[in-house]
Amino acid sequence: MSETSNDPHARGGPANHVQSGARTPSHAERVRTLLAGQDAGTLSTIALDPAGFPFGSIVTFAVDGRGAPLALMSTMAEHARNLDADDRCSLLVSEAGSGAGRLAAARATLVGRMRRVDDAQQDEATATYLDAHPGAYWARFPDFSVHRLEVQTIRYVRGFGEMSWVDGADHAAAEADPVAPAEAGIVSHMNEDHAHNLRDMVDAYLDVPEPVTDVTMLSCDRYGFEVRIGIEADTPDGNTVAFGRIGFDEPLERPEQAREAMVALVRALDA
Amino acid sequence: MSETSNDPHARGGPANHVQSGARTPSHAERVRTLLAGQDAGTLSTIALDPAGFPFGSIVTFAVDGRGAPLALMSTMAEHARNLDADDRCSLLVSEAGSGAGRLAAARATLVGRMRRVDDAQQDEATATYLDAHPGAYWARFPDFSVHRLEVQTIRYVRGFGEMSWVDGADHAAAEADPVAPAEAGIVSHMNEDHAHNLRDMVDAYLDVPEPVTDVTMLSCDRYGFEVRIGIEADTPDGNTVAFGRIGFDEPLERPEQAREAMVALVRALDA
Repeated sequence: MSETSNDPHARGGPANHVQSGARTPSHAERVRTLLAGQDAGTLSTIALDPAGFPFGSIVTFAVDGRGAPLALMSTMAEHARNLDADDRCSLLVSEAGSGAGRLAAARATLVGRMRRVDDAQQDEATATYLDAHPGAYWARFPDFSVHRLEVQTIRYVRGFGEMSWVDGADHAAAEADPVAPAEAGIVSHMNEDHAHNLRDMVDAYLDVPEPVTDVTMLSCDRYGFEVRIGIEADTPDGNTVAFGRIGFDEPLERPEQAREAMVALVRALDA
Repeated sequence: MSETSNDPHARGGPANHVQSGARTPSHAERVRTLLAGQDAGTLSTIALDPAGFPFGSIVTFAVDGRGAPLALMSTMAEHARNLDADDRCSLLVSEAGSGAGRLAAARATLVGRMRRVDDAQQDEATATYLDAHPGAYWARFPDFSVHRLEVQTIRYVRGFGEMSWVDGADHAAAEADPVAPAEAGIVSHMNEDHAHNLRDMVDAYLDVPEPVTDVTMLSCDRYGFEVRIGIEADTPDGNTVAFGRIGFDEPLERPEQAREAMVALVRALDA
């Protein structure tokens, strides 16, 4: 397990083969993207009773423009009473998954202080919360109010062996990936209808010395996409696997641009 | 929101209509059942850095005979280093669910101290862990060992408005519900093929004064089952809902007994 280098867009992560010049989402961007796709997590507070024990509970949240989670809490909730005495906390947010899948899933622990949003901003914060949780009619009950987690630092774990600490200021300045809401559709479309194009791109853009047997897209982000590469090898079952990243010419701003970016990469092969 | 009474099998919970004499699983039993059905949760520890902040991370676990979670940890993990300095922690375990579903889902926060299992018991504890996580080949790596959460107290939340504190000793003495592994199958079978029997049982065993329109089984446990009861009412859409519990004659010891218990309740209607 290793920390990432100082360049937040450094090549690498788990990919063995990275196209020259391809960028990778920074961990600050990955955390913002993870948060944008989730609406509940585990809040850890310091318990009043039993005093001093760390206490986990479930909270639902929205995210403000600087990546700060906005949680709706009742003054009667255990965690609200704990925070009233000690505002230090963390919020763990994880991709879906269970069992060993839970350890492979990306997750982030946002560490900081949770404070009730000032009265002057409470209406706006409640509106932001309700945008993300339109069914939460209790948000207007008198014992409920929105609290903001002022993020100091974040432990991000992308899966086995890729992890780092992300500074709160870098998190606040980062953007969620605009391609993420369309990612699942892009990946399944490319694998179902464009497997041959993926194979051609790997042949052209990555320097894989061994014979490639098959290519599967695993993920897509504003900077490019990652693939699983089947390789003929001198192993008991005659094959092995590598991972690659191919970059778009320019970072995407909207999910619709993924199609043209992919077409440009394929067209360039014939040029 | 109210705490439950001193009788751990007290009638009630969310049910409006409870058959005379029907028992309800205690919260200690519900926690043991919840734990038996999950293999990962969020561990809250006190961070070394930033010092004193509660820190959430994901752990996978097995459960020993007294309901204590057994977690496999690397000495390199953040939470292991935190626990080495301060062994106070909690483990939050939740039923599947997301968003508002996360707040309706049952969950338990087990509070106590996490300690490395003694060398003399490490092999046995590792075997118990591997029974629950057969793919965890890293369990035998030298930096990994099994730690036991010595449970002091538990915050159990069954959903909106039903919650209590469960004592660690009551938890250790309770049993997971033996019917739970078969519950989903029982519930769907009864709703698909025996809706008329459910309706007959509600008519015979519960004292619902209003006209009943339909009955749906929601859950089944060793003590009986719970139903959603559609009721004709003077509301804008002409109906409302109540909840009921009907009890088996004797607590079940094995899931296969659910069928005969259900048949006995139906047969008694004709006697």
